[in-house]
Amino acid sequence: MTASPTPDRAGRHRVVIIGAGFAGLAAANELGGTEVAVTLIDRRNYHLFVPLLYQVASAALSPADIAEPIRRIVSRHPNIEVVLGEVVAIDRRGRTVALADGPAIAYDRLIVATGSTHSYFGHDEWGRHATGLKTIEDARQIRGRVLMAFEQAEICDDPARQESLMTTVVVGAGPTGVEMSGAIAELSRHTLARDFRNIRPQTARVILVEAGPRVLPAFPPDLSDYARRALERLGVTVMVDTPVEDVTAEGVTVGGRFIAAGTIVWGAGVKASPAGQWLGVETDRAGRVKVGPDLSVPDQPDIFVLGDTALALSDDGSPLPGLAQVAKQQGEHVGGHLHAHLTRGEPMPPFKFNNRGNLATIGRNSAVADFGKTHLKGFVAWVLWGIVHVYLLIGFSNRFLVTV
Amino acid sequence: MTASPTPDRAGRHRVVIIGAGFAGLAAANELGGTEVAVTLIDRRNYHLFVPLLYQVASAALSPADIAEPIRRIVSRHPNIEVVLGEVVAIDRRGRTVALADGPAIAYDRLIVATGSTHSYFGHDEWGRHATGLKTIEDARQIRGRVLMAFEQAEICDDPARQESLMTTVVVGAGPTGVEMSGAIAELSRHTLARDFRNIRPQTARVILVEAGPRVLPAFPPDLSDYARRALERLGVTVMVDTPVEDVTAEGVTVGGRFIAAGTIVWGAGVKASPAGQWLGVETDRAGRVKVGPDLSVPDQPDIFVLGDTALALSDDGSPLPGLAQVAKQQGEHVGGHLHAHLTRGEPMPPFKFNNRGNLATIGRNSAVADFGKTHLKGFVAWVLWGIVHVYLLIGFSNRFLVTV
Repeated sequence: MTASPTPDRAGRHRVVIIGAGFAGLAAANELGGTEVAVTLIDRRNYHLFVPLLYQVASAALSPADIAEPIRRIVSRHPNIEVVLGEVVAIDRRGRTVALADGPAIAYDRLIVATGSTHSYFGHDEWGRHATGLKTIEDARQIRGRVLMAFEQAEICDDPARQESLMTTVVVGAGPTGVEMSGAIAELSRHTLARDFRNIRPQTARVILVEAGPRVLPAFPPDLSDYARRALERLGVTVMVDTPVEDVTAEGVTVGGRFIAAGTIVWGAGVKASPAGQWLGVETDRAGRVKVGPDLSVPDQPDIFVLGDTALALSDDGSPLPGLAQVAKQQGEHVGGHLHAHLTRGEPMPPFKFNNRGNLATIGRNSAVADFGKTHLKGFVAWVLWGIVHVYLLIGFSNRFLVTV
Repeated sequence: MTASPTPDRAGRHRVVIIGAGFAGLAAANELGGTEVAVTLIDRRNYHLFVPLLYQVASAALSPADIAEPIRRIVSRHPNIEVVLGEVVAIDRRGRTVALADGPAIAYDRLIVATGSTHSYFGHDEWGRHATGLKTIEDARQIRGRVLMAFEQAEICDDPARQESLMTTVVVGAGPTGVEMSGAIAELSRHTLARDFRNIRPQTARVILVEAGPRVLPAFPPDLSDYARRALERLGVTVMVDTPVEDVTAEGVTVGGRFIAAGTIVWGAGVKASPAGQWLGVETDRAGRVKVGPDLSVPDQPDIFVLGDTALALSDDGSPLPGLAQVAKQQGEHVGGHLHAHLTRGEPMPPFKFNNRGNLATIGRNSAVADFGKTHLKGFVAWVLWGIVHVYLLIGFSNRFLVTV
C-alpha cells in the first residue's frame, strides 16, 4: 500500500528529514537538485563526525575539526531548507512535525534519523560520573575531567589519592571503548605526564572493562586478540568477562572489587532517540523502531526510520549494526528512490547493506580492519584508517560557524 | 628600601607569579633556568592570546587556535612549577598567597598580573545583554548569539523582527570594537547570508557606536579617518559622539534613539582584576594598582603589579595603555632583573616602555599601523599585522590540552 503523494501549493512534494547525522544528510544530498522540496531539521547547526569524537575527548582534535555547519553542506541545493529546531511531536494523521519553537512543518514523506544516546542499563544515576561519548559536550567533559584529575594529582600529597586521580576506567570494549582507552593511555602515560613536576608517568593507569569475553566483539576473534595485545602494549589494563556492578563519584565496582578512578568513560550501551514515542509504534528494548525491508514503518509507508534509530534486519535476519556506514547507505537508499517514488509512483525497493569493512584504531599507529575474508592489523590497517578518515573529512571547510 | 630576601629551605628564593597572561608568562620565562624557584598560578590551564579573541567570536578561528597549555609553554624549565588555582587572598605580612582550594603558597617576591575584565560603567545589568570580549566563553557566546539570531531570522515572517535579529551593535570603537565590527560585518553580510534561504544579505547590519569623537582614539587622527572609511566600505554604520544610554535584551538606546538588535557586543570599558583589594592598596577608578617606576607597589618592594592590573606612568606622566606589548615588556623587565636582585642584592631598575607600534585590523584585508612617525594603512598594514601575529602564534603546538 502506498499513500498518495500530496504536492504543496507550488506543486512540489515535501520531504521532511529529522536529524542531520550520516543518514539524514545522505538522504538530503540525494534529494538535492530535484524538484522535491526538502526540509532538514536538526537541534544543532552542525553535522558531527561522531567516529572521531574520541579524538576530541583525548585532546588530539579540536571540536571544530569534526563539526561542519549543516547549512554549508547543503547550501548548493536551493531545494533544501534547513531548520534549527527541537522536534517535540509528530502528527501522523495531519502529516506535520511540531517543533518546540516555531510553526509546525508539513510533509508528504517523513524521514526520521535522530540517532541514539547512551544507556546505563537502568542505572541513569551512573551517568553523572561515567560520561558517554555522543556529543561535543561529552567529549569536552571527558577531556576536562582527565586534565583536571592530573592537575589535582600534581598538588596532592597522598600517594593513594594521587594514583586514583590518575586512573581512568573505560567501560565497554566496543570500538568507542577501545579507541578511547588507547587514546587516553597515550595522553596520560606519555603526553601529559611529562608536563608535570610531581606526577610519575607509571602511576597513570587506564583500565578497559568489558562484560563479554573479548574486546571488539563485532570483529573476528583474531582481530580481537590483536587489539587486546596492542592495547596492553600501550599500557592499558584489559579486563574481560567483567560486568560493571556500580559506578560512583569515586570509581567503579567490577567483580566485587572497587577501582578508584579520577575519570570514568562510558562506552557500554546505547539506546535510540525517542522517535518510537513520537510515532507511537513498537520498539525493541534499545528503543529502536522496527522497520520493513524498504525502511518504512509498518503500516505507515509515508514514514521512514534510518540509522541508529531503526531496527532493520539484514538478509540473514540479524539486526544491522549501529555504524556510520549503515546509516549513510540507508540515507542514500531512501533519498535516492524517494524522488521517483513521489513523482512517478514507483515503489520503494528493499534496502540491502553493502558491508565495506569495519575499522577500529588502537592508539596512534595501530588499527584493525575487517573486510570479511581479509583481516588487516597493525600499522597497515592504521594507515588505511587514516586515509579513509581524511577522505571522509575532506570538504570540512568553514568549520567554525558552529555553536557548540 | 629593599626587603631582605629570605631563601627557602633548599636555599632558593621563591618568586610567585599570579596570572599567566602576557606579563606573567614573560616574567616566568625570564626566570626560567635560574636557581630561583618560580610558582606560576592561574585559574585556567591555558594562556590565551587575547588580541585574536575577536576572530573566535566571528567564527574565523577555533578556541584551540589561540589557547596554549601553560604547562607546555614552561615545561623546559624545571624551576617553574605551575599551579591551577583561584587566588582568594594575599597575606603581605606572612608573605603567602591563599587559594580557594589547596595549601597557601609562600613567596619572597610576588608578581601580580591578573589582567582586567569589562566594565559597564556602573550598569552591571547591561552585561546580561552586551557581551564583552575577554575570555573564550565570551567569544563563544558572541558567536552563538550571532548565529542563533540568523537562525531565528530565517524562520521569522515579520520583516521588522527579521531586521532587528540581523542587526549587531558593537559598543566602543577601540581596537576591540573596530576589529569586532569589521569581522562581524564580513561574517553576517557575506559569509552567513549566502547560507540561508529567506534572509537578504542587505538587511544584515552592523552598527559601531562610540561615545568619543572618532574611532581608534589611541591612534593618530589620519589613521582613525582611514579606519572609519574602511569600516564603512565593509558595510559597518559608524556612529561617533554617541554615548550609550541603555542596554536591554531588545537593543540599545543611543542619543535618545532605540536600535533593535539581535546581538550586542561590549568593547567600551575595562576594569582591573581585584588585585587592589587583595593587596589593600590604592587604585584608580578603573581598579588599577598604582605602582612605582620599578613596577613595585609603594612601600611594598616585594610585590610587583604588571599589565592591565597596574597603573604605571610613562616618562611624560601619562598612564601606559592596556596593551599586550606593555604587559610583555613589563614582565620581561621584572622577571629579567629579579634574579640579580634576589641573589646579589642589586636594585630593581625603573621600567621604560619601548613602543614598538600599534596595530588594528579592519576586516580581512585592511589594517592601520602607528609607528610614531610612520603611519601605515590598508593592505600593507594588514600584511604586516598578519606577519606579526603569525610570528607571535608560532610555537602554539599541542593546543588542545586545554579545558575550556
